[in-house]
Parts: sequence; C-alpha cells; structure tokens
Amino acid sequence: MTYISLHTGLRYDYQIFMATVHNISYLLGALNDIGIFVFAISGAMRGVRHQLDIFGILVLAVVTAVSGGILRDLLIGAIPPQSIAHWHGIAIAVLAGLLVFFFHRIFERLQHPVLVFDAAGLGLFAATGTQKALQYGLSPEMAAILGMMSGIGGGMVRDVLTAQVPVVLQSEIYASAALGGAILVLAGEFFQLPAWLSVLLGATFTFVLRSLALYRHWSLPRPR
Amino acid sequence: MTYISLHTGLRYDYQIFMATVHNISYLLGALNDIGIFVFAISGAMRGVRHQLDIFGILVLAVVTAVSGGILRDLLIGAIPPQSIAHWHGIAIAVLAGLLVFFFHRIFERLQHPVLVFDAAGLGLFAATGTQKALQYGLSPEMAAILGMMSGIGGGMVRDVLTAQVPVVLQSEIYASAALGGAILVLAGEFFQLPAWLSVLLGATFTFVLRSLALYRHWSLPRPR
Amino acid sequence: MTYISLHTGLRYDYQIFMATVHNISYLLGALNDIGIFVFAISGAMRGVRHQLDIFGILVLAVVTAVSGGILRDLLIGAIPPQSIAHWHGIAIAVLAGLLVFFFHRIFERLQHPVLVFDAAGLGLFAATGTQKALQYGLSPEMAAILGMMSGIGGGMVRDVLTAQVPVVLQSEIYASAALGGAILVLAGEFFQLPAWLSVLLGATFTFVLRSLALYRHWSLPRPR
Repeated sequence: MTYISLHTGLRYDYQIFMATVHNISYLLGALNDIGIFVFAISGAMRGVRHQLDIFGILVLAVVTAVSGGILRDLLIGAIPPQSIAHWHGIAIAVLAGLLVFFFHRIFERLQHPVLVFDAAGLGLFAATGTQKALQYGLSPEMAAILGMMSGIGGGMVRDVLTAQVPVVLQSEIYASAALGGAILVLAGEFFQLPAWLSVLLGATFTFVLRSLALYRHWSLPRPR
Repeated sequence: MTYISLHTGLRYDYQIFMATVHNISYLLGALNDIGIFVFAISGAMRGVRHQLDIFGILVLAVVTAVSGGILRDLLIGAIPPQSIAHWHGIAIAVLAGLLVFFFHRIFERLQHPVLVFDAAGLGLFAATGTQKALQYGLSPEMAAILGMMSGIGGGMVRDVLTAQVPVVLQSEIYASAALGGAILVLAGEFFQLPAWLSVLLGATFTFVLRSLALYRHWSLPRPR
Repeated sequence: MTYISLHTGLRYDYQIFMATVHNISYLLGALNDIGIFVFAISGAMRGVRHQLDIFGILVLAVVTAVSGGILRDLLIGAIPPQSIAHWHGIAIAVLAGLLVFFFHRIFERLQHPVLVFDAAGLGLFAATGTQKALQYGLSPEMAAILGMMSGIGGGMVRDVLTAQVPVVLQSEIYASAALGGAILVLAGEFFQLPAWLSVLLGATFTFVLRSLALYRHWSLPRPR
C-alpha cells in the first residue's frame, strides 16, 4: 500500500511537472504567435499605405512577421527555422493580412497604426527571442543581443522593402527599448521567475517604453 | 544460363534505374541552372540601366541569381548552400553578366527586359525550390511556400540593392503566380508524375501567368 | 639520457608548434577584430551624417561590422556565427560607435571618412574570410568568392539600411579590389607563406587598390 501510494504520488508529481512544462512552452509559443500577429498587422498596414494589391499586402505581412524569428533561428542554429518547419506562423500572418485588407479603416483610427503594432511585436519578439536563445545555450549577454535582433529584424525588413530608412535608425527609442526588455527577461531568469512571467514583463516594458517615446516624442541624444 | 540472364536482366534494370535517377537530378539541376542564368540576365540588365561598371554588373547579376537559392538552402538546412559548395552556379551567372555587358542592345529590344527574364527565373526557382524542399522532408504546404520564397528572393534582393520597391510588392501578379506554380508541382507529385515533368509544368505555368499579367496589365484587387 | 633529451626536444618542438598555432589564430583573430572596428567606424560615421541618435549610431555600427562575418559563417556552416557565439566582436563595434559619437569631428577631417574605413574593412574581411573558408574545406575558387562576399556584405547592409545604392554597385573599383586581395591570399597559401602574412598581404592589396581608386577616381569600363 505504501509502495503504491508513493508510486501514485510520484506519478502525480510527474504529471503536474509535465503539465507545467507543457503550459510554459504553450504560453511562450502563444506569446510568439501574438508577436507574429501584430508584426503582420504592422506590415500589412504599411502595404495598405503603399496601395499594394491583396497579394502584395499578404507578402509584406508575412515577411515582416517571420523575418525576425527566422534571423534568430538561423543565428542560434535552430534549422529549419520554426516559421518554416510549421505552417501555423505563416497562417497567422496571412490571417492578420486578410483582416487588414478588409478592415483597415478600423486600424487607421489609431494615430500611428504601423508603429503601434510594431511596438507590440518588438516587445514580444525581443522577450521571447531572449528566452529561446538562452534555451539554445547562448550566454546571457549574447541572448539579450539576439533577442534585440529578433525584435528589430522584422521592422527593418519591412522598412527596407518599402524603401524607407528603418525606424530603428531614426531618432526614437526603439532598439534601446528592445534591449531593455531583453535585459528584464535575463533579470527574471536570475531571480528564477517562471519563464512566461519574465517574458511577459520584458515584452510589456519594451511596449510601454516604446509607445511612450512614440507619443511623447522622447529621444536619445544626437551627435553635436 | 537462366541465372546469368536473370542476373543480366536485373543488372540492366538497375542500370536503367540509375540512369533515370541520374537523368532526373540532371534535369532538375539543369532547370535550376537555367533559372540562375535568366535571373542573372535580369540583374545584369538592371545594372546596365543604372550605368554600373562591368564589375558592378557582374556583382548584381550574381547576387540576383544566387540569393533565392541561398535563402532556400539556408532555410531547409542544406549548408553550405549549393551555390557556395560548387562553383558552376556562380560561373553561369558571371557568363550571363558578361553576355549582357557586351550584347545588352539585343536584350533591350524586349519590352521589359529585366522583368521578362525575372519571370522565367521566378517560375524555374519556384518549381525547383518546391521540389528540393520536398526532398528535404518539408510538408507539402511549407514546400510550396519555400518554393515561392526562393522564386521571389532574387528579384527582391536585386530591387532592394538598386533602391526600388521590390516588384513582388507592386500591384502585379507575381508572388501569386509563383505560388500557383509551386502548387502545380505538388499536384504533379500527388499524381506521381515524373519530377522533371511537374517542375516543368509548374515553371511554365508561373512564367506564362506572370508574362500575361505583365503585358496585359492584369492585377489583383487593392484595398478601397 | 638520450631518451630524455629526445623527449624534451619533442616536447620543446611541440610547445613551439602550439605557440605558433596559437599565434596564427591570435593574429587572424586580431585582423578580423580590426576589420570589425573599422567597419563599425564606417557605419557610425554614416549614422552621424544621417543625424541619428546615439543608439541608432550604435546599431548601424554593429550591423555594418558584423553582417559580412555573419553571412560568411552562415554560408560555410559555422553556426552559431562567431559574432553571435562570443560577445567581443559586438563589444568592439559598440566601442567604435561610441568613439565616433563623441569624437566624430576628428574622423571628419578625412576626405571620405565612411569610405576610407570601409576600404580597410573590405580588405581585412576579404582576406580573413578567404582564409576561414579554406579552413572550413571550401575549394580555393569558392573560398575567394566567399571572402569577397564577406568583404562586401557589411557595406551593402549599411548602404541598404540608409537607403543608398550600395557602393559595391557604383562605378568604382570595389568588389574587384576585394577579389584581388582574396586571390592574393590563395597565392600565399600556394607558396606556403604563413597564414597571417598572406592575409596581411591580401588585406593591404585590397585597401591600397581601393583607396587609390577612391582618391584618383579610377574606374572600370561601363556598357556603351
């Protein structure tokens, strides 16, 4: 009897443990998918502004949404990249592109529709990218830089494709906000917070800081 | 005697089989090389239009010709990419660039020289890319998307390097034509056509559709 | 006694050998780091000219400095790339960016500050890239092309991000100078020069040729 209850107890602990692990990856995956969704909206809105046709809008939505993650996965050696190995990332981006194509007037009520959704994607990708780089064994400082790169990558590609100087290079708090969020994820790891919580904190920090800078025209010092 | 003739028969079958396998890869490789050649012409013609010097024209020819395939190979994990592992892809692109440098007046008799050769490359890369992604074990839907990406990649890089909004984002049937050709390759696989035949069908479909759209100014719906 | 002295002799030879190997990698690594430093200055100076803020300047410095090497490492299969696996490349680029931010007036005394530092980086990356590609087993002709690509990659990304037609495509001796330096590295290998010497020769050749072309307005033939 003792043996059995012990066994059952262990089994029970194991089930809780596995459910927790599953929930963590599920939550991280969900945050990554939300990042894909908002980046896709940002790309599609840029496409609407450039009067592209429906397929051009979808291509810009998908490319904006997956570039940062593909760059991250190529650099940490996760090949084939997540967005290529599974169809659901691209499906989410196509869905977001279709939503924008049919209902872009709703998104246009925002003051800077491209940049607000970009800020959300920036935060989510910087935070989840840092977490994924840590899982692939990168040192904390390089994980933060890789997180920052996966955050700024999508917007960079979107801006280059539409012949604009990337927002990351213009005089606004952008890459610094992404790096701040990435460092917060590292801090969360250091204090042993659950992974989803540190990712959520980091993503929120980046989004709030970037949005404040956007609406209040904050900026960093320039060379004299 | 029976034994020997049986043995000879098997040997004969085996030789035919190996010759067939060899011919298939040979044909696919040849179609890929033709794709490199026509994309290189497209890139070199753009270089002529921008009044680049001979080395600038060759660089633009090579980069346009190999970017789509390198992107494809990095994403499916075929490292080092085919164009880096063997010299002949780059040699073909350099040859095409030299042809354009010396005889560009001939190509200029066409109405849209850059875009017609681009259309041929688009079809060939979309079809061979889909086939190669299938060989590397990607699911059919991701193989089609990867084929489309390797088709549109070269033109994207050419247009970005010459500071133009990529043709894929402008209001013409482009990525949709590539995706159509890729799906035709999948259909050919499904109906167990020989690989070279489905690739040829897919490439032709894309080329014809894209050329018709180019000359008849077909376009897809835009947002209101 | 004989045995011991022989043993000591071998041991001594081995130590010299290891010290030499260590020095070679050290020297090659140092030349690569100098390449990162000068490319970063080139990128940061471009950022100053575009009136970017401090973080924009640092991002442009880092991206210009590491893109060529990351491209090289992805293509030869050295994953994760050197600049991602270790922090010191990015630290050097950040340091160079900070130097430019505070002391850009000093660099501006040069006639073409962006392009002079670019020429130094072009030579160093073309030469070290060729050497590294040889170490990874590429054939000599592909190693030279890969060296050229890692040389021209950083400037290409810098120019695309700041919405300019890349210098490599404009009418000046650029990619040809990089290829010349890469071929000199191959020649050095053929004549069994020490690796650091052939790299130094190749890098110097490219830098001198490119600088002469820059200041004397040399150019290659253009299409009629």
